[in-house]
Amino acid sequence: MPAAKLDILAISGALRHGSFNTALLHTAMALAPEDVAIEIYDHHDMPLYDGDLEVSAYPAAATRLKDRVRRADAVLFAVPEYNYSIPGVLKNLIDWGSRPYGQSCWDRKPTAIMGTGGGLGTARSQYHFRQVAHALDMHIVTRPEIFVANAATKFDKDLNLTDQVARDLIAKLVVALRDLARG
Amino acid sequence: MPAAKLDILAISGALRHGSFNTALLHTAMALAPEDVAIEIYDHHDMPLYDGDLEVSAYPAAATRLKDRVRRADAVLFAVPEYNYSIPGVLKNLIDWGSRPYGQSCWDRKPTAIMGTGGGLGTARSQYHFRQVAHALDMHIVTRPEIFVANAATKFDKDLNLTDQVARDLIAKLVVALRDLARG
Amino acid sequence: MPAAKLDILAISGALRHGSFNTALLHTAMALAPEDVAIEIYDHHDMPLYDGDLEVSAYPAAATRLKDRVRRADAVLFAVPEYNYSIPGVLKNLIDWGSRPYGQSCWDRKPTAIMGTGGGLGTARSQYHFRQVAHALDMHIVTRPEIFVANAATKFDKDLNLTDQVARDLIAKLVVALRDLARG
Amino acid sequence: MPAAKLDILAISGALRHGSFNTALLHTAMALAPEDVAIEIYDHHDMPLYDGDLEVSAYPAAATRLKDRVRRADAVLFAVPEYNYSIPGVLKNLIDWGSRPYGQSCWDRKPTAIMGTGGGLGTARSQYHFRQVAHALDMHIVTRPEIFVANAATKFDKDLNLTDQVARDLIAKLVVALRDLARG
Repeated sequence: MPAAKLDILAISGALRHGSFNTALLHTAMALAPEDVAIEIYDHHDMPLYDGDLEVSAYPAAATRLKDRVRRADAVLFAVPEYNYSIPGVLKNLIDWGSRPYGQSCWDRKPTAIMGTGGGLGTARSQYHFRQVAHALDMHIVTRPEIFVANAATKFDKDLNLTDQVARDLIAKLVVALRDLARG
Repeated sequence: MPAAKLDILAISGALRHGSFNTALLHTAMALAPEDVAIEIYDHHDMPLYDGDLEVSAYPAAATRLKDRVRRADAVLFAVPEYNYSIPGVLKNLIDWGSRPYGQSCWDRKPTAIMGTGGGLGTARSQYHFRQVAHALDMHIVTRPEIFVANAATKFDKDLNLTDQVARDLIAKLVVALRDLARG
Repeated sequence: MPAAKLDILAISGALRHGSFNTALLHTAMALAPEDVAIEIYDHHDMPLYDGDLEVSAYPAAATRLKDRVRRADAVLFAVPEYNYSIPGVLKNLIDWGSRPYGQSCWDRKPTAIMGTGGGLGTARSQYHFRQVAHALDMHIVTRPEIFVANAATKFDKDLNLTDQVARDLIAKLVVALRDLARG
Repeated sequence: MPAAKLDILAISGALRHGSFNTALLHTAMALAPEDVAIEIYDHHDMPLYDGDLEVSAYPAAATRLKDRVRRADAVLFAVPEYNYSIPGVLKNLIDWGSRPYGQSCWDRKPTAIMGTGGGLGTARSQYHFRQVAHALDMHIVTRPEIFVANAATKFDKDLNLTDQVARDLIAKLVVALRDLARG
């Protein structure tokens, strides 16, 4: 009987269907080694965080997220940059996952990040993300760092990543995340 | 005829009704000089940012926000800290206000920030916010900086800010914002 | 009699004679408009900051720096990145310029920054620098931001910057700094 | 024969003899468990980093630092905040330790940080330091974080730390660093 594959949950910080960042996750799926399964999480249903809602009517979408993250061996984020920082939509998902206090799904979770965007490849957003990861005590992969700059020139019309340097880095990142999760 | 009051739009980064950060905005209202009017913006209706939605069905809530911000002489944010950064719900509002590309409502807008939270008084979040303000070319007040630490000890049960040092700083911040907006 | 030229003091964050960042400053000198004079400051003589020294034997090198900065209409920094942040040697110069307390030479000084380095063009260092500029209430130019990536490919063997996009940005930055200083 | 004590090298970011941050390191020495020895490193002799010097006359002070760090099981930094960031004098020491390229003494070194200063207890500086630690792949302790605010009120005239909360945190930090180094 073959060993179970390592279960990596992939989360894109952009909801847009043609998102280059979501396309990075599809690239990771295609390049993952045989012993790894990557599934992309659909979070279109997540409400905005509201402390009153947390107490009175904890949203099913947040429960679903937390259950799925807890079941996963590791999490892989594609991190866009909106206005030099983490997209609100992504930060909101992370905020829900951390609540209620003491019941975070992120604690010690093996995690990796990458991103694609403008000239800096979402670097400003990724460093803010690393500070958030520190807050949540995620176990975050340190190398490689992946900043796919000038996204519009790096994908074909079917959203396949055509840049070989970036493809190689993504393959390495998935392996590094797997190895961190395997311990 | 009296001159029109300076119109400051106040935005809280927390949706919770008993929010200490929203309470800071009420404090600012109470302490504002006679020539300033502060109004708190209700953004419970804002959806999560989605690039597809932006194109196909730009939300009325985002239009309403942008119109109101454009009409305001200045904006005052109360900035909570969630997981060492800007709350997703606040960043999401800022993201919508910046879209579509080239039609941001934040451009050169006189802006001030303050916050209350744990031991660092939301400092980590406020510095991330300053980077976002830089991205958007907000004209942001540099002094005073207001980090109201240990929020639970600084408000009475009716959410009145009882700390006199913080009250004085907030009064100064509103004046500094007014002066920046008056030019 | 011609009007005095605007006096911009240029400071490189690297001491190495073949430094690409110092070369950026030479580029700025060559591209400066007629009403601007740029002079590069030699700070090889600066000691390391030591609070005891500050009190007992304030160094002549620090006095010389502060006098020269005070006389300048504006300051232009070339900001390398060492280990994802500001070079110690540059931060040390800034620290001396800020001391003793209350006698900073940086206060409200019109300032601009640019940098060249690896794949991110010293962006991580420049955002740390912007936080320092905020601490010191420098009046820092917000646009353009100049991140000359992959330095080794952008200069000829005589350290002339050959990248036309970067050259145009530097010319714009000098004009923006001049306009900020002219007020 | 007793097992060798764990060798922790302590480095203060301030050179001043009456430095509160150096006093934090003395506190750590006093509170360290029996199986840990902490030694404070004197780096008054370090020159400013200069790439020409690195090639032509690598300084003995930098060699001495690197040898001592390599021999240590772990490093404990006291991190002051100068102008909202890492003191130049401390960053300069770190920069030398990282050079020449490929011969860093910081790589995978178990490391912990703490600091004391103004109202935020050097938090701004410590987060910049964490980004530097990420650059250098230091293995940095994540918890506890120690921000000893309002230093002037927390030490007696002989520079003994009198704040019990801070003392307990420092004792915990040393144990956390030891455990990280023991593996």
